[in-house]
Amino acid sequence: MNDYSVEIIYVYMKTIYDTLLQLPLFQGIERVKLIGLLEKTALEFKKYHKDDVIFHKGEECRRFLFLIKGNISVETIDKSNKFLIYERMKKSTLLFPAFLFGKQTQYPATAKALDEVSLLSIEKSQALELMQNEQIFLLNFLNIVSNKTQTAFDQITSLSETDLKKNFAFFILTLTEKGSSDIHIKSTQQDLADFFGVARPSLLKILNEFKENDIIAYRRKELSVLDVEKLSNILFN
Amino acid sequence: MNDYSVEIIYVYMKTIYDTLLQLPLFQGIERVKLIGLLEKTALEFKKYHKDDVIFHKGEECRRFLFLIKGNISVETIDKSNKFLIYERMKKSTLLFPAFLFGKQTQYPATAKALDEVSLLSIEKSQALELMQNEQIFLLNFLNIVSNKTQTAFDQITSLSETDLKKNFAFFILTLTEKGSSDIHIKSTQQDLADFFGVARPSLLKILNEFKENDIIAYRRKELSVLDVEKLSNILFN
Repeated sequence: MNDYSVEIIYVYMKTIYDTLLQLPLFQGIERVKLIGLLEKTALEFKKYHKDDVIFHKGEECRRFLFLIKGNISVETIDKSNKFLIYERMKKSTLLFPAFLFGKQTQYPATAKALDEVSLLSIEKSQALELMQNEQIFLLNFLNIVSNKTQTAFDQITSLSETDLKKNFAFFILTLTEKGSSDIHIKSTQQDLADFFGVARPSLLKILNEFKENDIIAYRRKELSVLDVEKLSNILFN
Repeated sequence: MNDYSVEIIYVYMKTIYDTLLQLPLFQGIERVKLIGLLEKTALEFKKYHKDDVIFHKGEECRRFLFLIKGNISVETIDKSNKFLIYERMKKSTLLFPAFLFGKQTQYPATAKALDEVSLLSIEKSQALELMQNEQIFLLNFLNIVSNKTQTAFDQITSLSETDLKKNFAFFILTLTEKGSSDIHIKSTQQDLADFFGVARPSLLKILNEFKENDIIAYRRKELSVLDVEKLSNILFN
C-alpha cells in the first residue's frame, strides 16, 4: 500500500467518524473512544435509489438503521385501512427505535427512498455490545426509547376537554416521528370523519379553520400538514 | 459468627435471590451469575405502611423501584384537573420504567401504600452497570420500555371508526399499566363528558351499556373498571 492510498483510507475513516458523531446515538462519545469501539463493530452502509423499498410493514427489525443521506418516506396505515399517513424522516434519525426490542419487533410501517439514500446499519447484537461497552451509547438509546413513551403519555393527559381539533392534532403527532416533515394523509373526508366519529360537515369546519391558519392544506383525498409546530401548540395550549 | 447465624444469613440471601429471580427484569439470568452480579450492587429494601406516600407526582426518578410485597395505588391526574385515575399496581412491577430515562425523569403520578409494602430499590447508576455487565438484564429492560411504546402505537392505529366506546377504552388503557387492578376514575359525569367532547346523555348511554355488561360500575363521582380484559376487547375488536 503506497502513501497515497493510506491517505485515502484515512480521509474515508475520518468522514465516517464525523458522520457517526452527528448521530444522536453516538453523541457525547469521545472520538478516540469511538474509534476503539468501532474496531470491533461491523458497520454496513447501504445505498438505495428513488422509490426503492427500504423495508415493508411487518418485516422483522434486525438492525439499527440510521438515515445519513437523502430522504425517506414512511407510510403508516390504520388497522381498518381508512387512511395512510406519510411522513418524511429527518436525517440522522434512528429508524423505529421502539420496535427493535419488546413484543413487536416488526416494522409498523413501510419505508421508501425518495431520492439517493444512504443508511448506516448495525446488527442488533452488535448494537447491544456497544451498549454494554459504552455507557453513553446505552444512555443515548434509553433516552431515545423513553422519550417516545413520555411523549405519548404527555399528549394523552393533555387531551382533556377533547375537541375535534385536539383529537386531530393528537392523532397526527402520535403516529409520526418528531422532526419528520412532509406529513400527509391519504384518506377520503368521509373516512376521516368516520375515524373521528363526527359528521362530515363538522370535520370540514375544522379542516377549513386549519387551512386558514396555514396549518394544513387539503385536496379531495389528501391532506398535508404545513406546520407541525402550530399543530403541536393546538394540543398543548 | 457461629453456625446458627451463618445459616440464618444463608436462608435470608436465598430468599432475596428467589425474590429477584421472579422480577421481570431479572428473569432468565442464571442463579449463580446473579449472585456474582449482585455482590457489586447495593440493593435497598424499603418498607411503607398503609397511606404512606411512596413518591409524589413531579418527584425525580432516581432509582429502579420494584414492588415485591403488598399493594400500592397510583393516581394519575390530567392537565386540566378534570379527573383522577387510580390503579392498583401488580406485584413484581418495575415502577414507571419509561420515566427513568429520557427528557422527563419525574414521576407522572403519585404512589401510595395500600397496606404493608416492601420495595426493592436499586440506584439508577447501579442498574446501568447491571445492564452493561449482564446482557439479559439489558434486554429485559429494553423489552419492558419498548413494550410501552408499542402498546400505545397499537392502540392508536386500532382507534379507527372512533366511537365513544373505543375512545373510552383507549383512554383508560393508555393511562394505566398492563396488569394493574382496581382501576377507578374520580370525576363528575359532566367533566368526563366534556373530556370526551360529548353531551352528558351520550356519555351516560355508554356508561349504562358498560355497566350492563359488567365492564364498569359507577357512582356519582366515581367510576370503577370491573373487567380490564373486556375493555381491551372493545378497543381491539
